[in-house]
Amino acid sequence: MSGSTFGTLFRITNFGESHGPAIGCVIDGCPPGLALSEADIQPDLDRRRPGTSRHVTQRNEPDAVEILSGVYEGQTTGTPICLLIRNQDQRSKDYGNILDTFRPGHADYTYWRKYGLRDPRGGGRSSARLTAPMVGAGAVAKKWLQQQYGTRFRGCMTQLGEVPISFEGWEHVGANPFFAANVSQIEQLEAYMDALRKSGDSVGARIRVEATGVPVGLGAPLFDKLDADIAYALMGINAVKGVEIGAGFCAVSQRGSEHGDELTPTGFASNNAGGVLGGISTGQDLVAEIAIKPTSSIRLPKASIDRAGEPTVVETFGRHDPCVGIRATPIAEAMLALVLMDHALRHRAQCGDVALATAPIASARP
Amino acid sequence: MSGSTFGTLFRITNFGESHGPAIGCVIDGCPPGLALSEADIQPDLDRRRPGTSRHVTQRNEPDAVEILSGVYEGQTTGTPICLLIRNQDQRSKDYGNILDTFRPGHADYTYWRKYGLRDPRGGGRSSARLTAPMVGAGAVAKKWLQQQYGTRFRGCMTQLGEVPISFEGWEHVGANPFFAANVSQIEQLEAYMDALRKSGDSVGARIRVEATGVPVGLGAPLFDKLDADIAYALMGINAVKGVEIGAGFCAVSQRGSEHGDELTPTGFASNNAGGVLGGISTGQDLVAEIAIKPTSSIRLPKASIDRAGEPTVVETFGRHDPCVGIRATPIAEAMLALVLMDHALRHRAQCGDVALATAPIASARP
Amino acid sequence: MSGSTFGTLFRITNFGESHGPAIGCVIDGCPPGLALSEADIQPDLDRRRPGTSRHVTQRNEPDAVEILSGVYEGQTTGTPICLLIRNQDQRSKDYGNILDTFRPGHADYTYWRKYGLRDPRGGGRSSARLTAPMVGAGAVAKKWLQQQYGTRFRGCMTQLGEVPISFEGWEHVGANPFFAANVSQIEQLEAYMDALRKSGDSVGARIRVEATGVPVGLGAPLFDKLDADIAYALMGINAVKGVEIGAGFCAVSQRGSEHGDELTPTGFASNNAGGVLGGISTGQDLVAEIAIKPTSSIRLPKASIDRAGEPTVVETFGRHDPCVGIRATPIAEAMLALVLMDHALRHRAQCGDVALATAPIASARP
Amino acid sequence: MSGSTFGTLFRITNFGESHGPAIGCVIDGCPPGLALSEADIQPDLDRRRPGTSRHVTQRNEPDAVEILSGVYEGQTTGTPICLLIRNQDQRSKDYGNILDTFRPGHADYTYWRKYGLRDPRGGGRSSARLTAPMVGAGAVAKKWLQQQYGTRFRGCMTQLGEVPISFEGWEHVGANPFFAANVSQIEQLEAYMDALRKSGDSVGARIRVEATGVPVGLGAPLFDKLDADIAYALMGINAVKGVEIGAGFCAVSQRGSEHGDELTPTGFASNNAGGVLGGISTGQDLVAEIAIKPTSSIRLPKASIDRAGEPTVVETFGRHDPCVGIRATPIAEAMLALVLMDHALRHRAQCGDVALATAPIASARP
Repeated sequence: MSGSTFGTLFRITNFGESHGPAIGCVIDGCPPGLALSEADIQPDLDRRRPGTSRHVTQRNEPDAVEILSGVYEGQTTGTPICLLIRNQDQRSKDYGNILDTFRPGHADYTYWRKYGLRDPRGGGRSSARLTAPMVGAGAVAKKWLQQQYGTRFRGCMTQLGEVPISFEGWEHVGANPFFAANVSQIEQLEAYMDALRKSGDSVGARIRVEATGVPVGLGAPLFDKLDADIAYALMGINAVKGVEIGAGFCAVSQRGSEHGDELTPTGFASNNAGGVLGGISTGQDLVAEIAIKPTSSIRLPKASIDRAGEPTVVETFGRHDPCVGIRATPIAEAMLALVLMDHALRHRAQCGDVALATAPIASARP
Repeated sequence: MSGSTFGTLFRITNFGESHGPAIGCVIDGCPPGLALSEADIQPDLDRRRPGTSRHVTQRNEPDAVEILSGVYEGQTTGTPICLLIRNQDQRSKDYGNILDTFRPGHADYTYWRKYGLRDPRGGGRSSARLTAPMVGAGAVAKKWLQQQYGTRFRGCMTQLGEVPISFEGWEHVGANPFFAANVSQIEQLEAYMDALRKSGDSVGARIRVEATGVPVGLGAPLFDKLDADIAYALMGINAVKGVEIGAGFCAVSQRGSEHGDELTPTGFASNNAGGVLGGISTGQDLVAEIAIKPTSSIRLPKASIDRAGEPTVVETFGRHDPCVGIRATPIAEAMLALVLMDHALRHRAQCGDVALATAPIASARP
Repeated sequence: MSGSTFGTLFRITNFGESHGPAIGCVIDGCPPGLALSEADIQPDLDRRRPGTSRHVTQRNEPDAVEILSGVYEGQTTGTPICLLIRNQDQRSKDYGNILDTFRPGHADYTYWRKYGLRDPRGGGRSSARLTAPMVGAGAVAKKWLQQQYGTRFRGCMTQLGEVPISFEGWEHVGANPFFAANVSQIEQLEAYMDALRKSGDSVGARIRVEATGVPVGLGAPLFDKLDADIAYALMGINAVKGVEIGAGFCAVSQRGSEHGDELTPTGFASNNAGGVLGGISTGQDLVAEIAIKPTSSIRLPKASIDRAGEPTVVETFGRHDPCVGIRATPIAEAMLALVLMDHALRHRAQCGDVALATAPIASARP
Repeated sequence: MSGSTFGTLFRITNFGESHGPAIGCVIDGCPPGLALSEADIQPDLDRRRPGTSRHVTQRNEPDAVEILSGVYEGQTTGTPICLLIRNQDQRSKDYGNILDTFRPGHADYTYWRKYGLRDPRGGGRSSARLTAPMVGAGAVAKKWLQQQYGTRFRGCMTQLGEVPISFEGWEHVGANPFFAANVSQIEQLEAYMDALRKSGDSVGARIRVEATGVPVGLGAPLFDKLDADIAYALMGINAVKGVEIGAGFCAVSQRGSEHGDELTPTGFASNNAGGVLGGISTGQDLVAEIAIKPTSSIRLPKASIDRAGEPTVVETFGRHDPCVGIRATPIAEAMLALVLMDHALRHRAQCGDVALATAPIASARP
């Protein structure tokens, strides 16, 4: 409601600013009895954190997570889990020039108009740094879903700027700085990014995210549809301008005879649906893609106004990702995991445990 | 939560099934003192209702709305407004063959797996007929927003199947059965649909929806972002598989120097943002596009299974839209209006009335 | 949020006014597969409806309920259940004199101040008539809880005005017009009410409500406590001014050595807790009491002001209950059932079905 | 929903355990531009903290609050405010004997039954220590309400065990360790508590809490009534077993001619309503009373069972308040402030700023 809580039954309340003392979140509604420690959460945070290659911001943040509550003797107790991440490498003076002007394409302007004041240090609350606690919370959701249903999450970059990245295999994703499921184009992508960085400009990206081992029956009839909640979660990631489920915009020119995934006794024959029909999961892989816009903080000059409404020119220095899409894959995975976790609990509330069978054949229900 | 309520402060609770006695909704949270009668609501319902051309389902439903509560002497009282629409033209026997099988691409399968039983008459709760009450509620939101801020809504079809529809002017939208902002391609579209209908197949569509006169400052910092809520609302419309805000997927290959909309003392110089930055409205036009998949109920045979998991073939007769996208424009407008209305009330709660100035210049705030 | 929805996972959205065309509610989140028809709901509505004795209002309302959605072939489908009750016996002219003045002790004044206008016909939305849909929804909750866990609900009047009513046995409750668990004082109560009615005055009452067969473990740690939610539900009934759980206000002067209910291998030795410890059900009977104030619509003259702020005198004619407490027992039962139902679903979401064992011995959990 | 969030528009998410590293809360929805620092919050925390007299627990906790986010250059930014309080004086071994048994009257048993495991250190999440963050959040609400509407909060103990405390003046409340509005009985109360402590037993208390300068029109028609939300908030405080608004249980034996508060051109002539009619504030003082049960952790032996269901005897040592009611006054004030704050924002959302006039005369509205 007030903008800092995500989810209904597995709910994450996020706090902090890019250059404040700390960021973090409170996870409420986690089932009791889940084995949990910082070691379950840190790996996903490490996949997202800055400074891991020359293609992302050089801000030096270990993003070390501390569990402040909700775990006793290595198990979740059913009470709220607070994750705390101390900020370490603020250099607020880098942003001094932003104080009185508005970067084109940035939230500077809208925050100031909404609230009448804003914390300009590193983008304050609008910084993508605030996705770190979500990645932490997502790791908790991932662990529970995997133990309960065998659900797993994965994602990759499918386009960098105007360069489509061909899919060569999930095993490549961890082996390059772009989260590309690709081994043959990496040199090309490195050169592309090096030239971009030198130019002082930025570029967009396209990311695919998937869940496998998804229970059938998650979602709701009219609102709170699984795909609508996924769209909400993914569109809410900083810089996202588009979301597709399954065939996405390609469905526009498909015929019904082509689009509808046929059912066989052993499962679906295709996955144009992307794993959702009528807002409810089919048990197929959940598949979504997102469009990420280019970073708005660039060195190249752009026309803008200052707080008095007078024309000015903005050039942004400081440390920024030239393509925020590069670090977006673990974030998108986390958001998808949070949606599924929430829907798994909601389903359990109304329909009980029984219905969560993952068998693709219809006969699994009486 | 349970899937039938939309919105938080202006909240719509929807009920009914396609072939039950009635459909409707309860609108809670409407400000008091709004002049309101059925005459404010019926026109939008008429734009959406079936049977208005040969290109949509021939089900004969007047969709006459009755206000059951919340209005006294022609004014809203601040208490819940119940809208009731009686179903008139059910022919449930048309659907008899669907009872034991699952249409590929349809929610038949997932409803049955989720609940263990389903109302198969006309798709029951998964029918697009349930969007009628939302169109009704949207008309209330539209009226209040227009009176309060001068906000207006409009939409058009931009692609029918593989045929892009060029934009020639908003004035054309009401003058053809496709909601096309176009006058020169209408014959082509008519012929296209006639051939499609004869073939027994269906096709997708692409719809644009916009709001003008949008107050600046609507939305929230991290979650409950205005664009995320729009994505949720639009992806939740039956058959939608993709949502874009502003530049959408085109932003992937844009450079930051191109994408970021420059600010001038008289307003923004472009609108790649689609009216939202950092989840908060900029005061520019809100612009979104959606992808609608082809109808899953088609006459052409498709492989499927029955409830026992045995292979079968499904051919769907009965009355269906060969392109559900044709009637989607007023629905998308309504959902956009409901999101804006809710955010207008939320903004008022936290920041008070003052911040809702619509002036594009930054100096509107101290 | 906006005041017309009760509950979170089993959520009731209520609509209508005392003298509008209809009242009703939408029940969302009901588990699928519950056998349900109007015959399950009508009996509780009949216990609450007006005109059943000379001691309550003589308004003639059959309160016949119609299920508009959510049930197919006699079973709930998991989609929203709309209950509709048409108003039959409005005599709005009876209330003409209330239009411009404010009855002392009535919501006339606050509604007008909040909204700037109000529906004065029969109290509009503030009428106790709006509890009828809640009684209907409560009947659905009762049926599910009884089938699932054997939970049952009962209540009785324990004091009428200054007359305490001694408890003689639950079997007497249905055999007198006061819901008294008593057979020996009924004549006294009849005479008391006859005199009161003649005097043109009104009087308060005290009601006890209980649930038996309550699963252990319902509730939540800090907020959403079971007893806090019961307090919310009961204080929200028209005219209620106080709520007690278990020992209630008597606990103030108890010693800890006396108050704490001892545990034995076969269960608790007493029930000062009223079935809740730390906000979570113990498996003991849930026991609550409420204080109901005297009706504010009385024939005796009282000083007030009119809408211009000028002094005036108000005498209320029309049809009113001289003691609204008389019909409050089925309402309190329904509200208690709705709270328990909601918490049962919430518990199932977080902890799964297993934890809902009702055994009083601690060893039921590993 | 999941039990750790309070409020809807001004929402507090609470985390931590009595003997974990820290407790705290996230305040979301605070209006921007409120001057705020730790100095605004600490005084209320100091009124509640342990160790301030010999009549409360001797645990040594400074309860020093740290603002982690949401404030920039001394003003709230409209984004979430995280309050952190580090625990300092845990002595978990004091509670070793509680691990395998259940204190009669304590949440030990229900937590274990609900979750299958629990954090026994100092009561874990069920400790009254978790009210400290609520007192902190309440201080923020108090400050905003006072600045915006002149609303103020106060409370006092009206009964300690079987000893009624006569009201002699609000000025005495801060001058004795009992929050008694009394100067003449303090010696008696001191002696009473000394004897009680020596006996190893505990006792209950009765607390009154009030708000003055309350805007008229706060609350909602049917649910989310102001008094129902107050009942929820107060019943949710640890150990509370009863809540009254205004005349409370005395209303049972009142006549309507006596109970209904008459209106005059200059305001109400009495306040049996306790400031709420029909769930909406009247502008009179809000008045509530609560019953607090005796502490369940006592030295005197009580029969219980262990985790295997075997009979045992429990005697609780460690540091405990012999009357938790003594420190309850600032907690009750905070909860009342949080409810009013939330309703003020909700009202503003639906009805705008205008309606918040506090004038008692009806003519304030057109």
